[in-house]
Amino acid sequence: MAPARTLAQELASRQREISVAEFFERNRQILGFDNPTRALLTTVKEAVDNALDACEEARVLPEIRVEIAKEGTDRLKVLVEDNGPGILRKEIPNVFGRLLYGSRFHANRQSRGQQGIGISAAVLYAGLTTARPTRVTSKVQEEEAAHVLELSIDTQRNLPRVVSEDLELWDRPSGTRIELILKAKYIRGRQSPTEYLRGTAIVNPHARLTLLEPDGTKITYDRATGELPALPKESPPHPYGLELGELDYRLKGSKRPTVGQFLTQECSGVGPRALKEIIARSGLTGREVPSKIPGESVEKLLAAVHEVPLVAPSAESLSPIGPMLIKRGLKNVLGEVRPEFYAPAVSRPPKVRGGFPFVVEVGLVYGGGLPADQPVQLLRFANRVPLLFQQGACAITTAVGALDWRRYGLDQKGGNGLPVGPCLILVHVASTKIPFTSEAKEALAEDPELDKELTLGLQAAARHLKVHLSRRTRRDYAAEKFAIIQKILPKLAAKTSGLVGKPVPDLTPIITRIMDIVHVETAAPTGGGPIALATTITNYTPRARVLELFLEMPTDQFPQASFDPAPDGTDAELGRAWWTLPKLSPNTRCVVTVQVPKGSEVEADDLEFYIAGVDEARLIGAEPLPGDWDVRLPRAVIEAAEEAGEPIAAAEEGEVDYDAEEGKADVDDD
Amino acid sequence: MAPARTLAQELASRQREISVAEFFERNRQILGFDNPTRALLTTVKEAVDNALDACEEARVLPEIRVEIAKEGTDRLKVLVEDNGPGILRKEIPNVFGRLLYGSRFHANRQSRGQQGIGISAAVLYAGLTTARPTRVTSKVQEEEAAHVLELSIDTQRNLPRVVSEDLELWDRPSGTRIELILKAKYIRGRQSPTEYLRGTAIVNPHARLTLLEPDGTKITYDRATGELPALPKESPPHPYGLELGELDYRLKGSKRPTVGQFLTQECSGVGPRALKEIIARSGLTGREVPSKIPGESVEKLLAAVHEVPLVAPSAESLSPIGPMLIKRGLKNVLGEVRPEFYAPAVSRPPKVRGGFPFVVEVGLVYGGGLPADQPVQLLRFANRVPLLFQQGACAITTAVGALDWRRYGLDQKGGNGLPVGPCLILVHVASTKIPFTSEAKEALAEDPELDKELTLGLQAAARHLKVHLSRRTRRDYAAEKFAIIQKILPKLAAKTSGLVGKPVPDLTPIITRIMDIVHVETAAPTGGGPIALATTITNYTPRARVLELFLEMPTDQFPQASFDPAPDGTDAELGRAWWTLPKLSPNTRCVVTVQVPKGSEVEADDLEFYIAGVDEARLIGAEPLPGDWDVRLPRAVIEAAEEAGEPIAAAEEGEVDYDAEEGKADVDDD
Repeated sequence: MAPARTLAQELASRQREISVAEFFERNRQILGFDNPTRALLTTVKEAVDNALDACEEARVLPEIRVEIAKEGTDRLKVLVEDNGPGILRKEIPNVFGRLLYGSRFHANRQSRGQQGIGISAAVLYAGLTTARPTRVTSKVQEEEAAHVLELSIDTQRNLPRVVSEDLELWDRPSGTRIELILKAKYIRGRQSPTEYLRGTAIVNPHARLTLLEPDGTKITYDRATGELPALPKESPPHPYGLELGELDYRLKGSKRPTVGQFLTQECSGVGPRALKEIIARSGLTGREVPSKIPGESVEKLLAAVHEVPLVAPSAESLSPIGPMLIKRGLKNVLGEVRPEFYAPAVSRPPKVRGGFPFVVEVGLVYGGGLPADQPVQLLRFANRVPLLFQQGACAITTAVGALDWRRYGLDQKGGNGLPVGPCLILVHVASTKIPFTSEAKEALAEDPELDKELTLGLQAAARHLKVHLSRRTRRDYAAEKFAIIQKILPKLAAKTSGLVGKPVPDLTPIITRIMDIVHVETAAPTGGGPIALATTITNYTPRARVLELFLEMPTDQFPQASFDPAPDGTDAELGRAWWTLPKLSPNTRCVVTVQVPKGSEVEADDLEFYIAGVDEARLIGAEPLPGDWDVRLPRAVIEAAEEAGEPIAAAEEGEVDYDAEEGKADVDDD
Repeated sequence: MAPARTLAQELASRQREISVAEFFERNRQILGFDNPTRALLTTVKEAVDNALDACEEARVLPEIRVEIAKEGTDRLKVLVEDNGPGILRKEIPNVFGRLLYGSRFHANRQSRGQQGIGISAAVLYAGLTTARPTRVTSKVQEEEAAHVLELSIDTQRNLPRVVSEDLELWDRPSGTRIELILKAKYIRGRQSPTEYLRGTAIVNPHARLTLLEPDGTKITYDRATGELPALPKESPPHPYGLELGELDYRLKGSKRPTVGQFLTQECSGVGPRALKEIIARSGLTGREVPSKIPGESVEKLLAAVHEVPLVAPSAESLSPIGPMLIKRGLKNVLGEVRPEFYAPAVSRPPKVRGGFPFVVEVGLVYGGGLPADQPVQLLRFANRVPLLFQQGACAITTAVGALDWRRYGLDQKGGNGLPVGPCLILVHVASTKIPFTSEAKEALAEDPELDKELTLGLQAAARHLKVHLSRRTRRDYAAEKFAIIQKILPKLAAKTSGLVGKPVPDLTPIITRIMDIVHVETAAPTGGGPIALATTITNYTPRARVLELFLEMPTDQFPQASFDPAPDGTDAELGRAWWTLPKLSPNTRCVVTVQVPKGSEVEADDLEFYIAGVDEARLIGAEPLPGDWDVRLPRAVIEAAEEAGEPIAAAEEGEVDYDAEEGKADVDDD
């Protein structure tokens, strides 16, 4: 008889490995398969995201067809078909039948899928709930026929199991189709497949998406642009993002002959000068074999890396949407709402978070059919994928709620939380690594760097809204006043002069005294040829003025724009240009023209003008310079303003002022 | 020269497997390692949770020591030591150095850790941020010395790497100690190790926890009970929780000779009668070999399972805390706040969610030093582990916010969201499978069954609060009135009688007319021996009364209680008993005594009395019967009430009334 097992032996005997498929099968709520409604959405989402990624990699304008059909009482059949490059026969089982298997995890560039979990999880869920295999049809260009595989997942081993296999003729050069039968429920409205596809269409204006609903309704989202987004490039990791353990591990595994070559070739951002400095500070010679560097030296090396300024990680690994396409995408989908104002979209310059580059983009739409008594609609996106769940637990929502929107013209209880008003806010975060809070990829984790950029992007968009709202009010008022003066005053003068038999006097001093404003107006573009947007600045004040004009326009349009007269300064990264205008006597004007190539769809609304050198109260059609521009005004402007006794508009109190002094951000916390 | 690769080949060549360790290393925010503060908390949490699980399995009262010490500028050393059974040498590397490896995933019973991820993730994070191995010391009873291993994780393969190994004498029979050096930051206050240990102490009153903070401060949470919680038992899965794919898979893998034996022995809840019914409905004979049942029959079998009522999954796989220990745990830790009221804690009967049993428990504390102008403090727990993050995204928070607390005496803006008041609410969910929203185990996913139980538990606790608040007000008022009447009236009568030279009249009719109340009061227990709580019901109304008395008391104390007189009915599961009291003439009383064994610590506060047969306005010291009791009142009580023209108090409007008609729950949605 074997001796009785001790407690420790007994406990040890129960230890065993858990397969990742088993784990997620049991915890399917983590992957977004909690209930039949959400399971459907997650399945559609994972399949469409994969299709979009594949099309972009193959440089094909995506054509994606989604069909959802009833299949018994509580089951649906989901079909997603794309015109992507197709998948080689030998890879099909692994791609669809194995969790944690994929091509994008190690690539270090922006993509929708990264984890190699999503679509396999859908296959897992389908098999679990209906015991039916998933059918995959895929054709690559170089083969005549499509491979058709039916497969399921062996959860205990996390390996694909091919149930049947066939060849099929398919009348498209290449593409992939997946068909799953799963326990699911179709709904419309919030958190539905329609909502997801609508969001996807907004941030992927180059895609054409169709959806066939179970009741036969067909919904199509057509392209808003025929241009593919630039393909994000892979780049080696940036040293700022390396933790000590990771650096150590990479050094040990490196095949480069010297640590110097390791740093310049297996990391990004390390130039020859930085390398020299790093080597010197870390007490190395630079010729050491990477795998043989002792632990303490690795620590010193990493410390040195953080002391030396490096080139920021390349933004080429990212594929932001860009201000123009954000606006066009919103217009394409929001047509029926007829908003009164599409704010110029904001695309912040790329920043870095733990060695990974990221970009924040913000769009804002106001008025029209948007409900005025509801919280604003917040559309959240990560790497061009809509986030439909967990809004409350997302860093984007936190950033929106932390801004005091009352300053920008929206209602907001107590100055925090989602503001109320006829407004839709779009926020897109693009990064080589999105910090999702869970595998279901529904919310972003809090992060100080990310929050800073979100806040800046939202503030910029909010400022556009404020400008629009105050301009609307004041322009209406000034226009009314102006119309009266310009109509009545000359008539009055003519009549009076006639009565007294004297010549009609110069009305300028009188008009300017009554108006007492500087008037800025951009003319609608003339048709054909390149678009020229002429902005006229008129001094209707009784005093001569030296004004500084500032322009902000979409950053992606800035490089193609030409200006007349030439600006005195520009900042292409932020899409800004500025001019010291010639001295304007009362009732005189000058014109600044911005010219963009035809087809760029820049509109007068996309140009934001700011003026320094005149009191805010006397300015119509432009705003005083915001405080965060941090521009030194020319002496002439300052002197003229001082002479007039009109203070130059200063930074708004409490405004975040990150740009002015990067790294010493200071948000007031009222 | 090899032919150029096609696009599909090129894409295929990039496909590869992702190790689960790599995945979590890159997505460490998912596991709760976003930043140095949270990384510390997660590390302490995972180590302590494991220690508690181990001690319970070994039936040892846990003694857990946590030490956090500075180790350079941005590093901390974390030490967690327990008196558990220890771990066999051969299992140490896998337990600490491999993700998805553990003993509790397949056990189907309540435990803190289940996934086999937590502590290995801490080892992974420590290695990643400091490149230092983790040191594990463990001794099992049957060996003389402790094994000391230093280990790290090979992330690419998700396997442990033992760096060094030694033996050490350790002066305890058995136990485990883990020491990690990690990039971390120590804070106090919310979401800190102290907060986590305080919460742990509340729901684990049998544990002794000590914490040594980096500045040398030592905090101790002593035991509130010397009794170990019952060890949850493993049980086979309940068929209600099986999806089709899972059932199919289990049948295929079964070694039982017949499907009948499979159902009764590899599933729980299927008795002989239910088996017969299931077999009949599914068109099988019951003698089929499980692995050979065709797909369609499996579908029919599962459909049949859902049509036949089965015994609910056993609650023996759970280890709820119990009403008494919740209260004792709260008292043990909240001592310095001196709350005015500890509500009798609520322990709902076990329910089932997708085949997995679960229990909801609610504790509520009111007044004293708790801040009156803040939202209530919500302490969330799952399987005896405090949940400190993601409060906003948790089903518990949703349930608390969905209740209209204004009905129960707390402020609440608009009747939803966290109420405001000097109140602390504890919610504990115990289950064999907790639906966490992510691997960090910080929030529960929404689920209708869970929500229903949470709502019922919270309502029960809220009712106790309401009773307390209204009783406090009315008792104060009645006591004042009573004192005056009882003091002044006899004096007045004596004086008047003396003056007119007549005998003092019987004051009863006058007193009862002025008081016009039924008074219920429970006397404080007398010391020594079993505790007898005598409740006196006095009819101070001018009318004879037939009253029905209802008692609700902690369910875990109910079985030991004896009653005098014997109740007319009881419901042990809900801890309820009721009596039709003898007819009470004006100014007469009767006494009902509840007796519990010594040491059970039942207090007068733990007994809730409800009365039917008298108008709510005439009732002091007890409440009218809540609407959800669904008890048929004896004819005598109804008749007496009708005679008096006093309606029997009905269910409060809008109250959830699940119990009355199980399964047809109906919450009004105002």
